Amino acid sequence: MRLRDFGITPGRLPAGTLNAITDVPGVKVGHVTLISGEGALQQGTGPVRTGTTAVLPHDGSLFREKVPAGVFTINGFGKATGFEQIRTRGVIETPILLTNTLNIGRVSDGLIGYMLRQNPDIGLTAGTVSPVVGECNDGFLNDLRGRHVHEAHVWAAIDGASGGAVAEGCVGAGTGTACYQFKGGIGTSSRMALDGRYTVGALVQTNHGSRAELMMLGVPVGLHLLEDHLPQPGPGSIMMVLATDAPLDSRQLTRLAARAAFGLARTGTVSHDGSGDFVIAFSTPNRWAHEPAEIEQPVTRLTEGEKATNELFLAAVESVEEAILNALVAAETMTGRDGNTLHALPHEAISHWFEYYRRT
Amino acid sequence: MRLRDFGITPGRLPAGTLNAITDVPGVKVGHVTLISGEGALQQGTGPVRTGTTAVLPHDGSLFREKVPAGVFTINGFGKATGFEQIRTRGVIETPILLTNTLNIGRVSDGLIGYMLRQNPDIGLTAGTVSPVVGECNDGFLNDLRGRHVHEAHVWAAIDGASGGAVAEGCVGAGTGTACYQFKGGIGTSSRMALDGRYTVGALVQTNHGSRAELMMLGVPVGLHLLEDHLPQPGPGSIMMVLATDAPLDSRQLTRLAARAAFGLARTGTVSHDGSGDFVIAFSTPNRWAHEPAEIEQPVTRLTEGEKATNELFLAAVESVEEAILNALVAAETMTGRDGNTLHALPHEAISHWFEYYRRT
Amino acid sequence: MRLRDFGITPGRLPAGTLNAITDVPGVKVGHVTLISGEGALQQGTGPVRTGTTAVLPHDGSLFREKVPAGVFTINGFGKATGFEQIRTRGVIETPILLTNTLNIGRVSDGLIGYMLRQNPDIGLTAGTVSPVVGECNDGFLNDLRGRHVHEAHVWAAIDGASGGAVAEGCVGAGTGTACYQFKGGIGTSSRMALDGRYTVGALVQTNHGSRAELMMLGVPVGLHLLEDHLPQPGPGSIMMVLATDAPLDSRQLTRLAARAAFGLARTGTVSHDGSGDFVIAFSTPNRWAHEPAEIEQPVTRLTEGEKATNELFLAAVESVEEAILNALVAAETMTGRDGNTLHALPHEAISHWFEYYRRT
Amino acid sequence: MRLRDFGITPGRLPAGTLNAITDVPGVKVGHVTLISGEGALQQGTGPVRTGTTAVLPHDGSLFREKVPAGVFTINGFGKATGFEQIRTRGVIETPILLTNTLNIGRVSDGLIGYMLRQNPDIGLTAGTVSPVVGECNDGFLNDLRGRHVHEAHVWAAIDGASGGAVAEGCVGAGTGTACYQFKGGIGTSSRMALDGRYTVGALVQTNHGSRAELMMLGVPVGLHLLEDHLPQPGPGSIMMVLATDAPLDSRQLTRLAARAAFGLARTGTVSHDGSGDFVIAFSTPNRWAHEPAEIEQPVTRLTEGEKATNELFLAAVESVEEAILNALVAAETMTGRDGNTLHALPHEAISHWFEYYRRT
Repeated sequence: MRLRDFGITPGRLPAGTLNAITDVPGVKVGHVTLISGEGALQQGTGPVRTGTTAVLPHDGSLFREKVPAGVFTINGFGKATGFEQIRTRGVIETPILLTNTLNIGRVSDGLIGYMLRQNPDIGLTAGTVSPVVGECNDGFLNDLRGRHVHEAHVWAAIDGASGGAVAEGCVGAGTGTACYQFKGGIGTSSRMALDGRYTVGALVQTNHGSRAELMMLGVPVGLHLLEDHLPQPGPGSIMMVLATDAPLDSRQLTRLAARAAFGLARTGTVSHDGSGDFVIAFSTPNRWAHEPAEIEQPVTRLTEGEKATNELFLAAVESVEEAILNALVAAETMTGRDGNTLHALPHEAISHWFEYYRRT
Repeated sequence: MRLRDFGITPGRLPAGTLNAITDVPGVKVGHVTLISGEGALQQGTGPVRTGTTAVLPHDGSLFREKVPAGVFTINGFGKATGFEQIRTRGVIETPILLTNTLNIGRVSDGLIGYMLRQNPDIGLTAGTVSPVVGECNDGFLNDLRGRHVHEAHVWAAIDGASGGAVAEGCVGAGTGTACYQFKGGIGTSSRMALDGRYTVGALVQTNHGSRAELMMLGVPVGLHLLEDHLPQPGPGSIMMVLATDAPLDSRQLTRLAARAAFGLARTGTVSHDGSGDFVIAFSTPNRWAHEPAEIEQPVTRLTEGEKATNELFLAAVESVEEAILNALVAAETMTGRDGNTLHALPHEAISHWFEYYRRT
Repeated sequence: MRLRDFGITPGRLPAGTLNAITDVPGVKVGHVTLISGEGALQQGTGPVRTGTTAVLPHDGSLFREKVPAGVFTINGFGKATGFEQIRTRGVIETPILLTNTLNIGRVSDGLIGYMLRQNPDIGLTAGTVSPVVGECNDGFLNDLRGRHVHEAHVWAAIDGASGGAVAEGCVGAGTGTACYQFKGGIGTSSRMALDGRYTVGALVQTNHGSRAELMMLGVPVGLHLLEDHLPQPGPGSIMMVLATDAPLDSRQLTRLAARAAFGLARTGTVSHDGSGDFVIAFSTPNRWAHEPAEIEQPVTRLTEGEKATNELFLAAVESVEEAILNALVAAETMTGRDGNTLHALPHEAISHWFEYYRRT
Repeated sequence: MRLRDFGITPGRLPAGTLNAITDVPGVKVGHVTLISGEGALQQGTGPVRTGTTAVLPHDGSLFREKVPAGVFTINGFGKATGFEQIRTRGVIETPILLTNTLNIGRVSDGLIGYMLRQNPDIGLTAGTVSPVVGECNDGFLNDLRGRHVHEAHVWAAIDGASGGAVAEGCVGAGTGTACYQFKGGIGTSSRMALDGRYTVGALVQTNHGSRAELMMLGVPVGLHLLEDHLPQPGPGSIMMVLATDAPLDSRQLTRLAARAAFGLARTGTVSHDGSGDFVIAFSTPNRWAHEPAEIEQPVTRLTEGEKATNELFLAAVESVEEAILNALVAAETMTGRDGNTLHALPHEAISHWFEYYRRT
């Protein structure tokens, strides 16, 4: 189930066909979901409620054909990797992987392994490769210390990535994560800008927000559900990925990435002290050869006039906001280690408060 | 009139006594409002609808006793000055002045003049001084090219600054500015955190936002008033000043400043391409001598645990949001050059839509 | 006299024809030098030892045809303006003006005035304009508090700008400034990269460095001249401007600008606590219309392969280093207010130590 | 052998007792060096010429007692991790590990593993932990793709860390790395500032620079040795760690870190396009509890006056410069995979050119 199934059409821009990041042509998403075990925590064994999600900017070799990218750190209490190289060189050259916090090393290593397999010259004649990985803390449900996501899972997430509809909620990197202290996970959405000329898509891994903060399209749902299965510990982080087929360069993508904060803010949080709220944005039409044949390259760039830029910004804001809400709507109640439970936001509560506050 | 006069108590934290930036002990605000002339624009003559606003972190000599500060640029299409030195040295050493865009040079110069008068050793034995000035474009109503704010106005704004209630709406630097294409201007608000232990105050100079974006406490007021006196040209910028008596250092203040974006986002905008959306935050308890007597100095710092930091962040978000809405509520319809008019947001529309959407 | 007149060819890349920033086609430089009065300081009267220098990226209207730009702040104890907008939008739209510290407001205002005169629609239908101004403190010689650089001087510097050889030493913004506690001022240099395909030019306004630090091409000249006319007060700042006809975008120019620190470091300083060490870099081939006719624009970009980028980086480092040394060599002893004197670095000392350390 | 064994006392500040980062009280360094195999590369087997180096800010639990830290990215073509959290929270909470490029994931994971072992509550009741790891590419000698540094090596480097003299050259993370296309590796140095009141220490992992660039204390050694065993491929990166017992906060440490670029520049490089040149700086006297008992904490801070700050900056510049030169002097010729050899810089060449250019 998705937000729009409540009869709502949020925002002012139209969504793409799938209302997903995969509406951006060529973008693919793959999930590996790891669920096993019940009951008391046995470190290294389980229960396991975690996974990994891969976002691929295009079908080809990302190492050979890099895409322009920008990053934005809203609050950097997190372990996201690869940001320094994106800031300096303005491109990404691997799939983007999301996973759990303590798995950041293993998933980075697994992604490096994937790139090595795909490119036998990395580390020999073709330089090195910079993995891009983000994370959230799913330790309330998951045997976080067990670091259960291994190289094979990374490879499977990448190799299994596809276009088309994207599974949301308790899948992939969102398997064990929260959202405003309800169960959250993966969410996605998209918007078309400039009469359909460009698409912006968002995919998020939610884990952020305290209950009291939750706003859904202006409705203070969280304030009405303060006592409703409020878990401990509290809020975590959010990873946000933005894709577009508008020909943006790295600086422009950094500006776009900054707008994810506005989409996030609309859902109510203030970006907590302990939150790792990161944004990675990429653009697909211009590609950079790993070893450019020529010193100069003709490219097409967005001219950054007021209308075009603002619509892209709005598309980013709306798609991030709706992606978060989609994660919340899609996620189902899950019980993990030690019987800890993250409850789904009751759909009837959404319906009720949307109606009460005249959103439907 | 202020937002709370609609019978609303926005947010989750209590406001300070005045619900103003001056609730932070020692902070003073001064306005100089320049209104003259009617009718057709005569460049250099008028009509004039502009001014300047000064925010003083404390009563003493800011040059002798600097205060920790941080800045955050949400979208840098603006002419704010002084940010480089704040980033490097982590303090401000002058009052903060706000004015109109093309006056940025004259007001910087006037502020330098003020500091020279106050400190006869600047430029001789005491080094130099770094003015901090922000601006918005009030050219729809004002003879912007005339650059009517002069040194004497700067001095008057500083010398006339006081604690106590702060005039809002069409005063000082907000005399000619807008807000979501209604008349806006100066707004202020405050919040108490940690059971009153600390206060965070905000003062804003609004000029930002397109009509369709306007959200008031979750209510999509703008969408209902799309045709209501929609002026050309469109949206501009916003300057935001945050003050606190929590003992934050420059890095912590930079984090606090970043939360202003979350307050801004709650009012609906996406921070436009052509917007200069800047935040300046300062903290009052620790002071830095211009020429420190000792190499080491004992200071008290906030320990940045989850509870304390998050309440301060929330205080910043809520006070910025309410300050913007206060500017909108307080501002009155104003006609300026060439008969251009910025209309006040009708109070009855606010009442109506608050009631309709069950906010009151 | 210039560094190469000592029989030295510094660096590994060839200089351009003029060994000046004006080797970059279209770049123009203009100086206004203000020298008047002798003896005791009378604030507001003199003695005056100051001025302003304008660097124009091209011949046309910079407001109508903006050029890509990047900035880099090495140490931000300075009052440089315009950096926020360059970071966000990636272009400059005015000439770059250099002047003295306390004149930053007046020169900003004078530059705004120039742009208003040139563009009657600014502030009306064409939005606003962002002045770019840098400064150094020349108060040891100059009546700094008098703020003697006025709008007419700004206009004259811009209108008088030309290609061709660039005056160095005690001219323009360098009239009263120092360099490693000798007399310094304006210096310039250039390098050709990729077999002459591209040119990088540097222009600096020196005021930085303590005597003991001074290195000239690896020769510790400063250590040998510690007692030689060492003035009080101590070191100030440096402004560095880089121009290139390589088709770099804003991110690439920011990287180029960061290399100015390496050229600066080669002359010995550590970038002092109180130093405002700023770099502004621009590229001339791609231009941005103020109001782009199309949403997309074809541009040519440098592909950022190892060879091309590194030669451009080296060109920036070498041209900055030589520009600083040119300022030092060209400057002549000057006496200013209260009989304060900044002594020229004795040319015979340069010859002597270059020979002693086998540089010639 | 170290630089000073050539009879030179570089710089103006005195070195600490050991002229090593361990002169900062409490700082410990541990190396694990992995050398095995000869001849043709067999991926996954060898030859192995790599390792890992751990720098510990203090003896206790870094997770329980974090230390203020700052980072600075000179050129971000590298995979260093942990920087986002340091920028936001201003502390480090793990040892700093250095290793080879493609091992970044495994070493991050190994460091996480170490922290989990040491802190049984991480991932359960004590939140998460952010590993800080840097790297250089040693693939010219080493089976880089084999990723031979495993968790046990990380643990051994940390557990074996000690104060006292620090092994330099081909050890730890420097086992297989270069320096100006000679053999390089680990180097260290220190300086005392303010008459011994404070110490600044540097430890570097060199891999940077092209041969022609190499300057040693102003002597252009590289230009004289252009044909001397010049290996392919070319230059890589450098990791720099700065430690101090001056009570600097995160912003001040970021400023200190930026000065490492000045030390690096003195050795000749321009920071190449493909270079990952990163600096991590920390301060030892103030410590942050993981869970602070009080909301406010008294701390002592450096007042950042001109004298104190500049001496600390100079200490950072000189210690980084000498640490790089120490790495170069200490490293011995090494042959690795496929018979590839990185030659040591001949000590007789150093002596010769120091004498020729009158440095000794």
